Amino acid sequence: MQVKIQQAGETIRRLIRRDAYTNLKKILDKTHPADIAYLARDFTQFERDTIFKILKDDTEKTAAALSEMELKEAVRLLEQISQEDIKLILLEMSPDDRVDIISSLPEELSEAVLQLMKKADTEEVENLMGFDENTAGGIMNTEFHAFDEEMTAKEAIDVIQKSPDIESYFYVYVVDDRNHLVGVLSLRQLIVKPGNTKLKNIMQTEITSVHTSIDQEEVARQVARYNFLAIPVVDEENKLVGIVTVDDTIDVLREEATEDFMKLAGTSTQEITEKSVTGSLKVRSPWLLASLAGGILAAVEISNFVVTLERFIGLSAFLPVIIGMGGNVGVQSSTLMVRGLATGRINISHIWKVIGRELLVGASLGVIYGILLGLLSRVLIWADIFEFKSDISFTVLGFVVGLGICTSMLIATVVGAFVPLVLEKMKIDPALASGPFVTTAIDVLGVGSYLFIAATLIK
Amino acid sequence: MQVKIQQAGETIRRLIRRDAYTNLKKILDKTHPADIAYLARDFTQFERDTIFKILKDDTEKTAAALSEMELKEAVRLLEQISQEDIKLILLEMSPDDRVDIISSLPEELSEAVLQLMKKADTEEVENLMGFDENTAGGIMNTEFHAFDEEMTAKEAIDVIQKSPDIESYFYVYVVDDRNHLVGVLSLRQLIVKPGNTKLKNIMQTEITSVHTSIDQEEVARQVARYNFLAIPVVDEENKLVGIVTVDDTIDVLREEATEDFMKLAGTSTQEITEKSVTGSLKVRSPWLLASLAGGILAAVEISNFVVTLERFIGLSAFLPVIIGMGGNVGVQSSTLMVRGLATGRINISHIWKVIGRELLVGASLGVIYGILLGLLSRVLIWADIFEFKSDISFTVLGFVVGLGICTSMLIATVVGAFVPLVLEKMKIDPALASGPFVTTAIDVLGVGSYLFIAATLIK
Repeated sequence: MQVKIQQAGETIRRLIRRDAYTNLKKILDKTHPADIAYLARDFTQFERDTIFKILKDDTEKTAAALSEMELKEAVRLLEQISQEDIKLILLEMSPDDRVDIISSLPEELSEAVLQLMKKADTEEVENLMGFDENTAGGIMNTEFHAFDEEMTAKEAIDVIQKSPDIESYFYVYVVDDRNHLVGVLSLRQLIVKPGNTKLKNIMQTEITSVHTSIDQEEVARQVARYNFLAIPVVDEENKLVGIVTVDDTIDVLREEATEDFMKLAGTSTQEITEKSVTGSLKVRSPWLLASLAGGILAAVEISNFVVTLERFIGLSAFLPVIIGMGGNVGVQSSTLMVRGLATGRINISHIWKVIGRELLVGASLGVIYGILLGLLSRVLIWADIFEFKSDISFTVLGFVVGLGICTSMLIATVVGAFVPLVLEKMKIDPALASGPFVTTAIDVLGVGSYLFIAATLIK
Repeated sequence: MQVKIQQAGETIRRLIRRDAYTNLKKILDKTHPADIAYLARDFTQFERDTIFKILKDDTEKTAAALSEMELKEAVRLLEQISQEDIKLILLEMSPDDRVDIISSLPEELSEAVLQLMKKADTEEVENLMGFDENTAGGIMNTEFHAFDEEMTAKEAIDVIQKSPDIESYFYVYVVDDRNHLVGVLSLRQLIVKPGNTKLKNIMQTEITSVHTSIDQEEVARQVARYNFLAIPVVDEENKLVGIVTVDDTIDVLREEATEDFMKLAGTSTQEITEKSVTGSLKVRSPWLLASLAGGILAAVEISNFVVTLERFIGLSAFLPVIIGMGGNVGVQSSTLMVRGLATGRINISHIWKVIGRELLVGASLGVIYGILLGLLSRVLIWADIFEFKSDISFTVLGFVVGLGICTSMLIATVVGAFVPLVLEKMKIDPALASGPFVTTAIDVLGVGSYLFIAATLIK
């Protein structure tokens, strides 16, 4: 499958190079809009522009392809055509995608396009524009079937047959005379029942709905948990105002997972699609600066223990292992917390239980690896692999190194677990600061405690 | 919403403590099976057993709740009841979930249960058991509507009305007389058309299907890309054998993302639900051992440069910043690659372009932070914040440190980008070895090059 698409991509590029527009149009007609959007990511700007020019009169396909593309690129392409053409393409989009594009167009253009669109549609778009794009209101679709509870199954089917444009056909929502959501039934239930049955007698009345202001991630989690195909969105008065469909929630879940990955690594989703090197530098720099500050702090720490270090230079040889082991075990703990919190597997109400458990894990790991490293370093020195000379007993050195790694790992697990949980409790995104902040903090604390132990034991 | 569920959970626990089984049954009846499964994660074993005993006669709800639970726990609960009861509950499950449970039961029990189940069902389960559980065949559902292309819309609707048990009602598949998949249409299209229209005249013939052996991740990606509600699964002869529904693919995508998170951190998904501390230790140890080996290698490296270090002890103060910055920038690069490859945003066919870009980013970051750190260290020494004494020019020291961090960051970006791409090319999961392996490799290489630069420049 993947291979087939790649081949289509190669063919498209070749046809563009040869200016073979007739054949190009033929192959584009046969390519799924999602595949066009997928392929476009690897195309040059010129190639994308060419494809767009050929495709744009097929407004439905163009709309579908643009909806699947990076917003920035979709806007760039649209800016090349007339306002009238923009309008025609936008009208083929689902309202939520339409709003995303309109709010990203330059202000003048966006107003002109809004003017061109029919009044009804504009109103809908303007209503949607009032919602934060990361909430249920921001991702909901306003095209859905809502029927009065007094209607019969037959009447409902008749309405559906006459409105072929409504995308979300799997659930039918039932409202009372004040447009309050009171029930739901599937299209299947509608056709299975005798035509004269009233909707209120066949509908399911236990409905899960979300408020317009609910975070999109929470919406996606509910859709995933209950295996819904769509979830209804209601306003303050429990009036049905839209639905969020499962395909939109898949995108939300994937985007959020990618965002968490990038944040944990100290960068952002932006960098995956970033083309320019300077763009990458900007995105990466904040956390690298934090890491630099931490590193300098560690250097100052070390300079304060210069007397101890000069008595036995071999102590510095174990700095990398102290930092490396601490960092790795800390990342294990913080990743566990960040992902556990994101998927709901770890519950913030059990914060002390979770931290207590990590403390135990950290202490056990510290003792095990402390003994291991302490013995190993003693053996390495005995075997003359380390070429250090010193008046300090090598057994003491092994003990210092072992105790150092033990402390460092204990600190690492606790910091690694604590930081994300505290951030979550403070309603700050735990993924944001957990990665580089945790490793930097662990570096500074680990180095400090190791040298303190050394200075105390080696007198 | 979340709060409401938590409250239900508290009530359930209280009722269990009071042995108030009648009220307990009432509240369980009103709780969604997905919520019961969700709450059960925080319950004690005794509480879960109590709930299961009360719930088990409602086979449909029990089946739904067990399907949403950890497989291990679902099996543990089922082992407490009679084979006949197990059979009744399993019969309410979708075939793919049923297979997962049966293959996890102790062999004797699983055979006894298979015996009890009706022949037809057993055959189906046994067929499914032949597929790898991570493939389309392993997650597909065998209950779906497939109609002959010569049937009319009316005839198809009649069949649907008579088979209320089939879960996946949104697509209807069309096959020819040899059961080959030839078309698809939505339930909606079926009721919109006149009843006497033949299916072959209204079906959509461009169908995306997957082979039973396709990896579940690839299946999920296709469902997400094309916004499908289900995707048909075919065997070698293009015969329709099942469908994978969107709710199953959401679970796949979430599971895979969680797996990648854990692998990148050097642990596994298992640890999120792991209760015992020794279990955690086992899961975390492989990568910690690798990190320990790397740390000892770095210690040996350092011991080889003891002459240089003894001439200026201040060099060791910069080991943490060299390791820390290298590690962070390397994690940024490798995370970018791992997630980019997983979501299809980064394409393996452009491996050299991607690595070239990272090389540029690494070189730029190296130069910027090299100059910054070089100047900073020179200033810190001048300001007497570092209490080192030495006969080496401090300008040379600044130069060594600057060049050291520059090299280390350049190495880090290239290793960070290269390792996941090479693993992907070798068909090894890039998430598996990228995290701790990359940071450990970067530690060793970074420390080595820094000390080499120092030894070369400080003569």
